[in-house]
Amino acid sequence: MKKFMNAAETMVAESVEGFVRAHAEFVVFGADQKFVRRRQLVPGKVAIISGGGAGHEPMHIGFVGRGMLDAACVGHIFTSPTPSQIVAAIEEADTGAGCLLVVKNYDGDVMNFEMAAEMAGSHHKIEMVIVSDDIKTERTGSRRGVAGTVVLERLVGAAAEQGMALAELKVLGSNLSTRIRSMGVALTGVTVPHTQRTTFLLGPDEIEMGVGIHGEPGHSREPFSNADAIVRHLGETVLSDIAPATGKALLFVNGLGGTPPAELYLAFNTAHRLMMERGVHIERSLVGTYATSLDMQGISVTLAFLNDEELFLWDSPVATAALRWGC
Amino acid sequence: MKKFMNAAETMVAESVEGFVRAHAEFVVFGADQKFVRRRQLVPGKVAIISGGGAGHEPMHIGFVGRGMLDAACVGHIFTSPTPSQIVAAIEEADTGAGCLLVVKNYDGDVMNFEMAAEMAGSHHKIEMVIVSDDIKTERTGSRRGVAGTVVLERLVGAAAEQGMALAELKVLGSNLSTRIRSMGVALTGVTVPHTQRTTFLLGPDEIEMGVGIHGEPGHSREPFSNADAIVRHLGETVLSDIAPATGKALLFVNGLGGTPPAELYLAFNTAHRLMMERGVHIERSLVGTYATSLDMQGISVTLAFLNDEELFLWDSPVATAALRWGC
Repeated sequence: MKKFMNAAETMVAESVEGFVRAHAEFVVFGADQKFVRRRQLVPGKVAIISGGGAGHEPMHIGFVGRGMLDAACVGHIFTSPTPSQIVAAIEEADTGAGCLLVVKNYDGDVMNFEMAAEMAGSHHKIEMVIVSDDIKTERTGSRRGVAGTVVLERLVGAAAEQGMALAELKVLGSNLSTRIRSMGVALTGVTVPHTQRTTFLLGPDEIEMGVGIHGEPGHSREPFSNADAIVRHLGETVLSDIAPATGKALLFVNGLGGTPPAELYLAFNTAHRLMMERGVHIERSLVGTYATSLDMQGISVTLAFLNDEELFLWDSPVATAALRWGC
Repeated sequence: MKKFMNAAETMVAESVEGFVRAHAEFVVFGADQKFVRRRQLVPGKVAIISGGGAGHEPMHIGFVGRGMLDAACVGHIFTSPTPSQIVAAIEEADTGAGCLLVVKNYDGDVMNFEMAAEMAGSHHKIEMVIVSDDIKTERTGSRRGVAGTVVLERLVGAAAEQGMALAELKVLGSNLSTRIRSMGVALTGVTVPHTQRTTFLLGPDEIEMGVGIHGEPGHSREPFSNADAIVRHLGETVLSDIAPATGKALLFVNGLGGTPPAELYLAFNTAHRLMMERGVHIERSLVGTYATSLDMQGISVTLAFLNDEELFLWDSPVATAALRWGC
C-alpha cells in the first residue's frame, strides 16, 4: 500500500491541516481544531453542520463556506466524529438561529450526532436531517448516505444563506432526501491505513456493485464489463428505485477517489444518454471527485429530482473549496 | 487493467463528449468536433488556444471559458492534436486580435502547433508560448511542460480577458515560463489503453522521481518513503532549480489522476511548511487534480513566483469547468 502519508495516526490531522492552509480564504479551524468552520459566520443565519469519518474528502470540509456548510467535523478514517467534536461545532457555529445537522445514514454517525444534539439541546435549537440516498438492497439493509449528501448540503446551505428558518430547512432537507438517489460501483477495494487491511479484494475481472463509501462490500460481485454496461446498470437501478417527482433532475457522476477525470466524463456521457432516453430532463450536471472512499477506483451515479425553486437554490452563489460559483 | 471505457478507439471521443455535455454552460464543440471552444467568444479579444494529448484531463478542456482558454484541441491519448485540429481552432476562435498558442514542451506538440501556425499564419496573427516548467535533469533532457501549464494558461487567459494585446501576451507568457517550476513523482506507472502496456512498472516499495505526464520514466527510481521525505525532495528540487524572482509565490500540489484529495491535502501541508521554512511567501494555493497522467498514482509540486500584477490576474474572474471563481 503506497500512499502519501507519514503515519496512520497523524494522517487525518495532517491532511485536514493542509486543507485549512490551502483554503484559508474560506475556512478556519474551530476551537481546539475539533472541527473546520466557515471563516465568516453569519449572525442570525441557521448554521448548517455536517461531518463524518475521514476518507471521504473533499466531503465534508470541502463544502464549508458561503452557501453550503458552516462547520464540518472530521472523525478518524471511516469513523464518526465524537459527540464532543459536534457539540463544539454547534457551540461555535450557532449564531442565534439554531443548527441543522446533516448526517449520513450510518449507525455511528447517527448515534454521535444524536448524542451531541441532546448534549447541546438545552442551549441551542437543533434539528437533524438524515441523508439516505443510497439504493436499498436486501444485503446492504437500510439506505446509506453517500454522494447525494453533496446535493442536499448544497441546497439546504443555499436556503439557509437566503434566510430560511430552521423548521423549514428541516422540512426541505427531509423532503429532498426522498428525491435523491445514488448507486456506486468499485473496480478495486480499499486498504485502510491503520489496519493495513483491504476491505475486500477484487480479481482482475471483477467489480463490486452497490458499494458505499466506507470500503464495505456492495450487494453483488459482477464480472468486469464495459463502461456502458456498468453505468447503465447504475443508472437503471437508481431510476427504478426513485419515483420521479418532476421531470427535471440533476445528474451527478462522482469519483470514489482513484478514478481520473477522463473516466468520469466518459461515465457521465453514458449516464446522460440513458437519462435522456428515459425522458429525464437533466437540468444541472456535476462531474468530479466529491465523495470518496479513500483511493477506491470506482464511481457513483446520483440522480436528484429537483423543482424550480431547488434548481434556483443550486444556482445561487456558493464559495467553498470544492464547489464554487457566483462569487 | 480495469477502467471506465468501452473501447480504446472511442475512449477519448466519448470522454470529451461527456465533458461537453456536463459543462455546456462554458463550452461547445468547434467545427467537426475537432476542438472544444468557449461558448461565448469575445470579439476583439486575443484568443488563447492550447491543446495536447488526451489523458491529462481536466487539462486543457477543463480550462476553456472566461478568463482562461478560448479553445483546446485534444489528440489521442498521449499524442499531439493534429495541425488540422489546431488550424480549425485558430480559424474559429480568432475574433480579430490574433491567437496566442500555449504549447507544452514536447516534440510532437511543438511540431504540430508550429505547423498549424505556419498553415494559418497568412490569415491570422499568431504567437506561441512554449511551457517548460519541469525541472531539468540529464536523463529527461530538456524541460517538459507539465502541471505549471495550468498557472500560465490562467494568467495569460486573465490578461487577454482584460484586453492585453498579442505581443504583450507573448512577453508575459514567455516571462512567466521562467518563473514556474514543477516536479512530479509516481507511486505507480500507467497502462495505456490502446497498447495495454504499462509504461513502467514499480515494485511495492519503489517510486519514480521526476516523472512527466505521459507515463514516461523520470530521472531516478527511489525507495518508497513517507510523504514528508517525498514531498520535501520535490519541493527542495524545485526551489534549487528556480531563481526566486520575488518572495511571493503560488504553491500548487497537483494529483496525477489516481491520488485522492486527502493525500493531496497532506502533501500540500508538507510542501507549504517547507516553503515557509525557506522564506517563500505562499500568497496563493491550488490543490487538486488538474493535470493528469491517466490514472497514475502520484503528485507534482509546482512553485510559481508571481509579482503583484500577476497575483491580481490570478484572482480575476475565471469561469471554466475546472477553475472557477469571481463569476
